[in-house]
Amino acid sequence: MQDLPTDRAEYPVIRAITTRWMDNDTYGHVNNVVYYSYFDTAVNAFLIEATGTDIRQLPAIGIVAESGCRYLSALSFPETVEAGLKLEKLGRSSVIYRIGLFRAGAASAAAVGRFVHVYVDAATRATVPVPEAIRAALARLSVP
Amino acid sequence: MQDLPTDRAEYPVIRAITTRWMDNDTYGHVNNVVYYSYFDTAVNAFLIEATGTDIRQLPAIGIVAESGCRYLSALSFPETVEAGLKLEKLGRSSVIYRIGLFRAGAASAAAVGRFVHVYVDAATRATVPVPEAIRAALARLSVP
Amino acid sequence: MQDLPTDRAEYPVIRAITTRWMDNDTYGHVNNVVYYSYFDTAVNAFLIEATGTDIRQLPAIGIVAESGCRYLSALSFPETVEAGLKLEKLGRSSVIYRIGLFRAGAASAAAVGRFVHVYVDAATRATVPVPEAIRAALARLSVP
Amino acid sequence: MQDLPTDRAEYPVIRAITTRWMDNDTYGHVNNVVYYSYFDTAVNAFLIEATGTDIRQLPAIGIVAESGCRYLSALSFPETVEAGLKLEKLGRSSVIYRIGLFRAGAASAAAVGRFVHVYVDAATRATVPVPEAIRAALARLSVP
Repeated sequence: MQDLPTDRAEYPVIRAITTRWMDNDTYGHVNNVVYYSYFDTAVNAFLIEATGTDIRQLPAIGIVAESGCRYLSALSFPETVEAGLKLEKLGRSSVIYRIGLFRAGAASAAAVGRFVHVYVDAATRATVPVPEAIRAALARLSVP
Repeated sequence: MQDLPTDRAEYPVIRAITTRWMDNDTYGHVNNVVYYSYFDTAVNAFLIEATGTDIRQLPAIGIVAESGCRYLSALSFPETVEAGLKLEKLGRSSVIYRIGLFRAGAASAAAVGRFVHVYVDAATRATVPVPEAIRAALARLSVP
Repeated sequence: MQDLPTDRAEYPVIRAITTRWMDNDTYGHVNNVVYYSYFDTAVNAFLIEATGTDIRQLPAIGIVAESGCRYLSALSFPETVEAGLKLEKLGRSSVIYRIGLFRAGAASAAAVGRFVHVYVDAATRATVPVPEAIRAALARLSVP
Repeated sequence: MQDLPTDRAEYPVIRAITTRWMDNDTYGHVNNVVYYSYFDTAVNAFLIEATGTDIRQLPAIGIVAESGCRYLSALSFPETVEAGLKLEKLGRSSVIYRIGLFRAGAASAAAVGRFVHVYVDAATRATVPVPEAIRAALARLSVP
């Protein structure tokens, strides 16, 4: 994960997420687990808005196959986090996102991550192609 | 909620729940929100086991209409919490539970709560009677 | 909790909180537990902003002694929740808040709650008076 | 993360973690974020028990610098998860863990992960050597 982009300008889409009191753990900063909730919130909220569709009702749904995060500096309640989204790779049935988490207005990321969706049939959970509506939306994450 | 039972002996069923690192908040004890996750975990795990059924697949599902908690002393990771369950009232379409949270082996509760399920049709969300399988399971929560 | 105010106009302060993908549970709506994270987030973020102080560093801290919620209609990711705050009672060492959770722009609450802070010495956890900075901030929650 | 061990026999220590109702998301399985709460719970609970010390009170604390997870098959409430721990690398100030999550009794992992702690001074957050008490405990994670 050494090559994940830390510069805000590299992320075509930025979304704001409010932190919560309980996000902070015993060490007084946002717990490492919670960063991943910002990741899947940013990705799925983007997809719902950009497709204009409740993606949870599509015949194919995105299941997380892999994720990862490098923590560069601490985030802490009550600040608002800005999540940058960028498409790393669009495959036949998978989508790889790069995600940067920024303090409000910061140029450099507090954390960077990778998040991999594999599309499966909602009923059988067999692998299927990425739906057209999703593909169309992802075009917005390709160019900074 | 002054009358909620704090004595372990009043709870017919006790279930163990492991705490998590992130349950502790910035003050070093289990965050107030997390107690409610112990409540709905204890109730639903009990119902799944006692009915021998995946209750999420029944035509009628239990939706939470009301909940409440009095916090008597702090819980903290890594201790294991023991959740006591007791039936307060079984209505036509609702079930009221009393719940006590105990430190492992403790006689007196660290927190006590009330938790109200209303049964609704899984598809239409219209109120329906409590399913027979649930009623039968609840008999085990009636006698200390 | 029958008398908790459901009308937005009764809440002097409203704060926006973004929902998260994982807030929704297996039934497709925000899990009952998560409502309480909106409660303590709204209260504490208000106190931090209104006092201009990191309240976690004060010699006296607010510990939750009691909480409760009535769920009136379902919230669901990705909507933004608006939390209304109102002071119910300011005692010597305790503060009782009323909280309403609203869909964006809605006049009537999707959930209403009560949230009770008791102030304790940060080191000894003995009960102490509500700090002056907190009292001053609470004046803003008294008049609709 | 292709080389992470999926075989239970490779993990010297196994710890049980109870799932929670709200761990399941809208797709009816444990949400991808929650796997990381199993990771840091298993690591920290092991360290507290194996050192016989509340590691949160040591002058040096472990901060998460990187984490990652490959999801191989779905976990779901109400099952109990078994987390396997193995030491990948012990450096001067960092510890890299490999973690496997297993269904109760399963030989092959439902998910595998990496979890990197860097030790810092609890007050200044400057990097410091891994404490001796932690080093001694980690010996138990080195041999399968």
